[in-house]
Amino acid sequence: MDIKKYLQEKKEVVDKALESYLPKQSEKKDNEEFPVSLRQAMRHSLFSGGKRIRPILSIAAYEAVGGKGDKILPFACALEMIHTYSLIHDDLPAIDNDDYRRGNPTCHKVFGEAMGILAGDGLLTEAFRLMTKQSMNDPRVVLDVVNDIARASGISGMVGGQVADIESEGKGVDFPTVEYIHTHKTGALILASVRSGVKLGGGNDETLKAFTGYGEKIGLAFQIVDDILNVEGKAELLGKSTGSDLFKKKATYPSLLGIEESRKRAGELMKSAIDALQPFGSEVEPLKEIARFIVLRES
Amino acid sequence: MDIKKYLQEKKEVVDKALESYLPKQSEKKDNEEFPVSLRQAMRHSLFSGGKRIRPILSIAAYEAVGGKGDKILPFACALEMIHTYSLIHDDLPAIDNDDYRRGNPTCHKVFGEAMGILAGDGLLTEAFRLMTKQSMNDPRVVLDVVNDIARASGISGMVGGQVADIESEGKGVDFPTVEYIHTHKTGALILASVRSGVKLGGGNDETLKAFTGYGEKIGLAFQIVDDILNVEGKAELLGKSTGSDLFKKKATYPSLLGIEESRKRAGELMKSAIDALQPFGSEVEPLKEIARFIVLRES
Repeated sequence: MDIKKYLQEKKEVVDKALESYLPKQSEKKDNEEFPVSLRQAMRHSLFSGGKRIRPILSIAAYEAVGGKGDKILPFACALEMIHTYSLIHDDLPAIDNDDYRRGNPTCHKVFGEAMGILAGDGLLTEAFRLMTKQSMNDPRVVLDVVNDIARASGISGMVGGQVADIESEGKGVDFPTVEYIHTHKTGALILASVRSGVKLGGGNDETLKAFTGYGEKIGLAFQIVDDILNVEGKAELLGKSTGSDLFKKKATYPSLLGIEESRKRAGELMKSAIDALQPFGSEVEPLKEIARFIVLRES
Repeated sequence: MDIKKYLQEKKEVVDKALESYLPKQSEKKDNEEFPVSLRQAMRHSLFSGGKRIRPILSIAAYEAVGGKGDKILPFACALEMIHTYSLIHDDLPAIDNDDYRRGNPTCHKVFGEAMGILAGDGLLTEAFRLMTKQSMNDPRVVLDVVNDIARASGISGMVGGQVADIESEGKGVDFPTVEYIHTHKTGALILASVRSGVKLGGGNDETLKAFTGYGEKIGLAFQIVDDILNVEGKAELLGKSTGSDLFKKKATYPSLLGIEESRKRAGELMKSAIDALQPFGSEVEPLKEIARFIVLRES
């Protein structure tokens, strides 16, 4: 299969859905009016050329287990909103103080710090609103998925990992701490993306278990590769400056194990992720290709 | 009825439930571990002497329509977590830059700005996790309530109102803008608190409509009274400095209409709120008393 074409097609589906959930123009429906500046700030970060890996993973998992139609889209888009909120808050001066992201000025650089905080808050909350809209999905499954995503995004997931990341800066932290940071800050939401697709697509417990193994491995691999790219990636491909982890003395795989060993680990995780899907047939081909893409990407 | 006793009793129920949802000590369950500092920062603001008005409103509405037992508590506590997150973020240097809240140093003053942002993010996300836990409530009703609360907290509610509030600072804004700010920044979540109780307690559409009228009125009255207290309240009762709205040239009822007219409007809203509950009997007495309390409070 042509993975680049697949990713491009799915990205277009996600972008179109996101556009419908947060359109450029207000719908002016009752009680739906909100400040233009807030809409612009949220859209600035939401439509800044992201790869849409999390929504694509949820769609790929959904379709792999036999899910049909658009019922996955609110969840896929909510995952991207949550991811985007986390980037906006991470970039704030009080946290990572980053001026550029995907080649564009970060949200607070354009709209100010107060708006950066509130645009992030808005995207996070909107994600939960979107997922809980009445739909054709089984409400029990929806609640389970939303709970899974909230756990992955919150204190036992992304937020917890982010705090541990900040606290590790400048300190010589051990390997378990780096693993905690990676699996929580980045891995948890990637895993929840895969699991949401399985659950909403009607996959059984055995399938969920296998896909969870896949999700855990690519989640960790994703962050290792991110850290490798921060050391030796091309700034013009990444759209942001490199070397910042080293400068901030961040706890990363490369800083603890070196580049070569980190690359080796990422490769092993890719292989394990693909192995976890061995019991399945051609329907998991996109997921296998996404695992390869995550590890072999240059940006 | 003795409203002070009622409020105290309900506050204790809410505090106990909040304590169980975010205990001082980690439960060390699988995947539940998160940084100690994050727990401390969240608890600092969550347990700093709040009146628990929103959770109490949801419980009072729940019981008024015949709801029984503890099934309301996760929602009541989630409402307080969302309220607390909004206070933490509002107090940040980039937004209101407040050093004190309820007589205590604000979250970012104690734990730093990065932690203030992340403790707020953590509380907001934890609220959604708490509400979507599997429970004995009808999953369809739960989804509806969570959606209502997400709407009230997000861009079409609190976040939108907060942005409008910031943008109004120092400008001579008109009355409709002040009303937009009040009904969205504060009113929406108070209204959602009342509605959540009705829905989870099994109230019918007619009841929901009447209680919605009550909730809209007390929500607006609450903010008007807050603004009056900011002008002429006692700092030692409020636990924060007064006069800050005037200093920041915030758009408020007192700044537009003067203190006397604002007080009159708050009184009228209190009366309308109580009138909205006229069709009901003694079961709505606590709600009527809460309306009086909201308008006649001194802190």
